[in-house]
Amino acid sequence: MPKRKIQRERPKEKFSYDPRKVLKMLDEHARRILEDIKAGKNPHFDIPMRGLSNVYFDEKSRLIKMGDKLSRRYFLNVAHARKFMQTLLIMAYVKRLVSEGKHASLREAYYANKHTIPGTRENTFEDQSESDPIIEDLERMFGVLREEMHITADRRGYIYGDIVIRDGEDEFNASRLGSGGWAVPGTVEHIQFPEINVDYALVVETAAMADRLIEEKFPKRENALIIATQGQASRGVRRLIHRLHYEEGLPIIVFTDGDPYGWYIYSTIKQGSINLAYLSDKLATPESKFVGMTMDDIKKYGLENVTEKLKGIPPNKKGGPTGDYKRILEEMNYPWFQNKEWQRQLQLALKWGVRIEQQALANKSLEFVAKEYLPEKINNGDLLP
Amino acid sequence: MPKRKIQRERPKEKFSYDPRKVLKMLDEHARRILEDIKAGKNPHFDIPMRGLSNVYFDEKSRLIKMGDKLSRRYFLNVAHARKFMQTLLIMAYVKRLVSEGKHASLREAYYANKHTIPGTRENTFEDQSESDPIIEDLERMFGVLREEMHITADRRGYIYGDIVIRDGEDEFNASRLGSGGWAVPGTVEHIQFPEINVDYALVVETAAMADRLIEEKFPKRENALIIATQGQASRGVRRLIHRLHYEEGLPIIVFTDGDPYGWYIYSTIKQGSINLAYLSDKLATPESKFVGMTMDDIKKYGLENVTEKLKGIPPNKKGGPTGDYKRILEEMNYPWFQNKEWQRQLQLALKWGVRIEQQALANKSLEFVAKEYLPEKINNGDLLP
Repeated sequence: MPKRKIQRERPKEKFSYDPRKVLKMLDEHARRILEDIKAGKNPHFDIPMRGLSNVYFDEKSRLIKMGDKLSRRYFLNVAHARKFMQTLLIMAYVKRLVSEGKHASLREAYYANKHTIPGTRENTFEDQSESDPIIEDLERMFGVLREEMHITADRRGYIYGDIVIRDGEDEFNASRLGSGGWAVPGTVEHIQFPEINVDYALVVETAAMADRLIEEKFPKRENALIIATQGQASRGVRRLIHRLHYEEGLPIIVFTDGDPYGWYIYSTIKQGSINLAYLSDKLATPESKFVGMTMDDIKKYGLENVTEKLKGIPPNKKGGPTGDYKRILEEMNYPWFQNKEWQRQLQLALKWGVRIEQQALANKSLEFVAKEYLPEKINNGDLLP
Repeated sequence: MPKRKIQRERPKEKFSYDPRKVLKMLDEHARRILEDIKAGKNPHFDIPMRGLSNVYFDEKSRLIKMGDKLSRRYFLNVAHARKFMQTLLIMAYVKRLVSEGKHASLREAYYANKHTIPGTRENTFEDQSESDPIIEDLERMFGVLREEMHITADRRGYIYGDIVIRDGEDEFNASRLGSGGWAVPGTVEHIQFPEINVDYALVVETAAMADRLIEEKFPKRENALIIATQGQASRGVRRLIHRLHYEEGLPIIVFTDGDPYGWYIYSTIKQGSINLAYLSDKLATPESKFVGMTMDDIKKYGLENVTEKLKGIPPNKKGGPTGDYKRILEEMNYPWFQNKEWQRQLQLALKWGVRIEQQALANKSLEFVAKEYLPEKINNGDLLP
């Protein structure tokens, strides 16, 4: 039987980042406000509503999506005026950022726009919890990522593998950076990939495991790109995964701990999160597959001795379910886990009351994960949907 | 007056990583145990004691150091036997790692050595909290870093600036990696610096601030290397700072939030921590200086509007001191903060009850920190000891 190998696919979308798009939208909205004022009308914004009531799972695209409920924000309304003012302030700030080609963090955006309104004791913003939602409102209203508005996310994560990255004037191969790898910036909109010599991307939860695979030369031997998320994937990393899949045709395979937190990391990469439902089509990658750790791995590879107990109270005990058990029960209800493969793993976790870490594979040998576990599962297509 | 510029100094030490040193020590200790057994003697290890009672601040070297109290661990002693067995297991494991040129994380070291002793129901290790202290014991006993024993630390942090790094077969310039920068690996013992074209290293607490400085081209304009710690500095980053200072003569300047957590980050980079006192001479850099944020900055730069309140109860209120206040009082007692500059800042924080973040400088303008605040303070030598 020929070795079944994961191959790079035909790209599905072409993304080109164009700052003029954002500037045009800002301009249109601001112009409309101005015209309303000139016409003696009460100016307003229509902003897609946040919250669960305006979120649904779209079976066709397999994405969490935002519904079409709008909320109208008026200038001449005591309950709206403050937020209206804040919206315009942030719009002006974004215009400045994008025009000047500068980026600001959420925190900087808050500090930069906080001041006392002359002649009053009123501050424009009292706390970052006032400015963050305004930025989200703009994302929803314009249908753009805040990264496209030059507001950067927290950065975390690094990559390693044979792809050439172009970032501004720099161009380098992400497999020639020693054991360190390339630190993924908060914004990856401007990154280009002039050369990709890998067959797929393996997304890895822990830095320790990513470093194990780098040391074992897994990226070279298996022709894979390693993306270390270092916990929950940052927005930059999720956007990078999305772009590598849709624009470059790289299959995405996710490798986390075998526990509800690891499975949630997978879920967020695959489907997006409820909070950021309106961004799913730019941040999520529903075609991702999951290689492990699974409950079946424990038996198959004889890892019973290196499992850990689930935390919390099981559903059939007094006070339960709490902790890991509660989380597993929640995950069993996710629309994208409604298949027998995932229900089986989640049921087994509940039944056995255990979790299994990626690094527990070191119990076999250090090279086991890189030379047997991953190549075997990936090349046999032994992956969860 | 000529512009006062921080300059690279003459290197103070030359480090060359030699794995044979560790192998030789393992060999000597194991051989002694074997001879004891052959001679019918009860074999033992002498391990420097842990804990506050065996830690002191050495005024001359300005380092937290380990004292010379030893604790003796016997094989034939019911209270010692388990730990004795664990010590030998880990020693054998380290020998294998170093001989084969492989690295393992603390967690892998635990999983790799966990097994049930044949013919019993006894596990060699029940939990990582049993294996970590054994590895620390070996660090103390041999006077080497666990990184030299090929046990890697968690990685976090990245660098950006005009230095050439050699890591294995790869050689690259850390200012040519786009906006990402180079992700610092867990172990930096093997890293070499064939070319250094910067005058000093600026260690920055938050990624958002490091990215601000990169965007403003601060590294190029000021001839500086940026080291982003992303919170408390990881061991890899602290070791990198130490090596850049002592082996390459780079002055180290630290830039954190103006709050007890930021000042603690500085303190750990400068003096080491009590936990790792026995490693201070490899991880700490007492010659580091502190540029900000300080309480005096608030007045000097008119940042009153963007301070935040300290958390916790002040010392003069009922139930106090707690939280930030308690931490500040502790820091006032640190031997290396016994100077009027630091006492002044800590007193002011207590008095005003506020903290100030790095990113609050964005209130002036995005480029303010890179074009005025830092160059002004650094070039005028307006630094705390």
